[in-house]
Amino acid sequence: MDLKEKALKMHEEWNGKLETTAKSKVNSREDLAIAYTPGVAEPCKVIAENKEAAYTYTMKANTVAVISDGSAVLGLGNIGPYAAMPVMEGKCVLFKEFGNVNAIPICLDTQDTEEIITTIKNLAPGFGGINLEDISAPRCFEIEERLKAMLDIPVFHDDQHGTAIVVLAGIINGLRLTGKKKEDCKVIVNGAGSAGVAITKLLLTYGFSHVTMCDREGIIGKDYPNLNWMQKKMTEVTNLENQTGTLADALKGADIFVGVSAPNIVSAEMVASMNKDSILFAMANPVPEIMPDVAKAAGARVVGTGRSDFPNQVNNVIAFPGIFKGALEGRASQITEEMKLAAAEALANLVSDEELNDDFIMPEAFDPRVADVVSQAVKSHIK
Amino acid sequence: MDLKEKALKMHEEWNGKLETTAKSKVNSREDLAIAYTPGVAEPCKVIAENKEAAYTYTMKANTVAVISDGSAVLGLGNIGPYAAMPVMEGKCVLFKEFGNVNAIPICLDTQDTEEIITTIKNLAPGFGGINLEDISAPRCFEIEERLKAMLDIPVFHDDQHGTAIVVLAGIINGLRLTGKKKEDCKVIVNGAGSAGVAITKLLLTYGFSHVTMCDREGIIGKDYPNLNWMQKKMTEVTNLENQTGTLADALKGADIFVGVSAPNIVSAEMVASMNKDSILFAMANPVPEIMPDVAKAAGARVVGTGRSDFPNQVNNVIAFPGIFKGALEGRASQITEEMKLAAAEALANLVSDEELNDDFIMPEAFDPRVADVVSQAVKSHIK
Repeated sequence: MDLKEKALKMHEEWNGKLETTAKSKVNSREDLAIAYTPGVAEPCKVIAENKEAAYTYTMKANTVAVISDGSAVLGLGNIGPYAAMPVMEGKCVLFKEFGNVNAIPICLDTQDTEEIITTIKNLAPGFGGINLEDISAPRCFEIEERLKAMLDIPVFHDDQHGTAIVVLAGIINGLRLTGKKKEDCKVIVNGAGSAGVAITKLLLTYGFSHVTMCDREGIIGKDYPNLNWMQKKMTEVTNLENQTGTLADALKGADIFVGVSAPNIVSAEMVASMNKDSILFAMANPVPEIMPDVAKAAGARVVGTGRSDFPNQVNNVIAFPGIFKGALEGRASQITEEMKLAAAEALANLVSDEELNDDFIMPEAFDPRVADVVSQAVKSHIK
Repeated sequence: MDLKEKALKMHEEWNGKLETTAKSKVNSREDLAIAYTPGVAEPCKVIAENKEAAYTYTMKANTVAVISDGSAVLGLGNIGPYAAMPVMEGKCVLFKEFGNVNAIPICLDTQDTEEIITTIKNLAPGFGGINLEDISAPRCFEIEERLKAMLDIPVFHDDQHGTAIVVLAGIINGLRLTGKKKEDCKVIVNGAGSAGVAITKLLLTYGFSHVTMCDREGIIGKDYPNLNWMQKKMTEVTNLENQTGTLADALKGADIFVGVSAPNIVSAEMVASMNKDSILFAMANPVPEIMPDVAKAAGARVVGTGRSDFPNQVNNVIAFPGIFKGALEGRASQITEEMKLAAAEALANLVSDEELNDDFIMPEAFDPRVADVVSQAVKSHIK
């Protein structure tokens, strides 16, 4: 049985990858009177006086909602809320297994921005955080920004920020390996969707000064056709020379390539035109922008992909469980830029000088230290 | 430590009475590839082709949302969504412990009817059923009716229908004990909120012909002041003689009293004015409309309350877990009147002729047969 068949068979057996479990067992009339009426009125009354007590007496303290409208699911696209459920359940499983965070999958039967915002605002009281997932750009930017302004719990679009944190961790270690300095590096980010925008923003915040974004029509600048509002905003802080041309033009003399785009669109020639000791993250799934062996043969020093069967996998699972674990434990009201940078640095630092090499720049998903280290980094930046 | 102190202490220890548990463990790269990417794409693709497959591959098959806006919580009133959480978590615990149904508490940060309806419609895809809870009347009627019309999964307001089913079960056994016939009985329901309306409706559906509702101003008829739309609708099917007067007037010659109202508002004299072998359900909490010993001394034959420390407790926990268990297993799209009647009869029948007596007309909450019997009754009426 191949992986696809096995995955389908297992999903049928599980009939739901997640279940709820009662921490308060109910085996007697007294149990019932304590966990439910009349005893339950006591925590209710305390919370009615002071909303903050919800963190003491309810699962809000350690529970996240994983919310999608099914508009941009994995590589599958706009498959809607029903078909998105297996992914959201899977994400919730990873929250629990890697971060010991309770997570509830919620798939929305609307793709209207206003309805999504209102719905999430309305269902938020019982949750300690909101993980947005697989919502298409540019709607995801507005939905996240407006919910962050409305809610007093963290709102985090993992496709954006989880990916950005892990890529930055890899790049930090790429610099460590090659001795390059962030101020001097020319970075090309190809793919101006949710992940590409977030990666670019985080790299700028980290201190990279020369970042250029590309998309289907080549280099993004002020005259690029049909930019959405977020991409337009990005032209104010990227490609400051207002260069034009193709991705191949952009890559000439570049130090770092980050691809969140399409299979096989980077050629060996393009890699050969980059600076010495180039660092590539080719994260198109399942087929990367360039295969690692081809990139290496053309002169690349470090190559990461989204795949677990190649070295240097960029896998969000090393970020989001720890991010929310830390935010919940420290009761952060937001995931700030400082926390994201600290998380990336903490992940990079998990790779010791002895371990660090071209094919090992990222901690492993199953490294048991990961969630705690990320969570501590987040907590140390809660004001 | 008294019950209140113990309940508060335990809620603090639990820090959430519910948690999520992964059925799909993730201990290896292969586990990850099956439960999450890339394997998870397979069930997604099947569901994208056929929405019904969500019942095979996701937790929709066995998961209910327990949703409240915190507007009418227990005896506490409008305490809002944060303070309502301990009750909703408790309800979810009972769903799991008594019916093996996964349930997720969702407390809404709005009390606007339209927003509630839109929010619940939007979050429904991942759930197999919606249990509405502690939403104030008359909004609860409209919210439930409109959601039932919109959604293809069961929507069930337990304060209404759960209570009605259990009361009917008790009344069926009250008739069995006393030999009274439903066609001949005069029934008085005091309290025209969500439970009172639902009980009245179910008694009429069951075949009682003489039901009169009362509220604060006495007998409800066409001239009763300030009736809401649902109470007005009820005047078309109750009190057909258009009698007026006080609750005391109503109770003269009555056979059955159902109180979902206020403490101590039924006197010994009123009970004495009822017919022989009268049956009373005095469910105001924690202090009933009349104490059982007072009612019995005044001539009542069967007295039930909402309390576990008196005989004949009316406890919804013998209904809702089995109702949803049956509806989910049989994939019902609605909980119909036939299912409610069948559930009440099944509950009544659990009390054998040998067991049946004035102080034992209802199966116990911890009777292990309850959920299965109710679930079978519901399933036998799925078309």
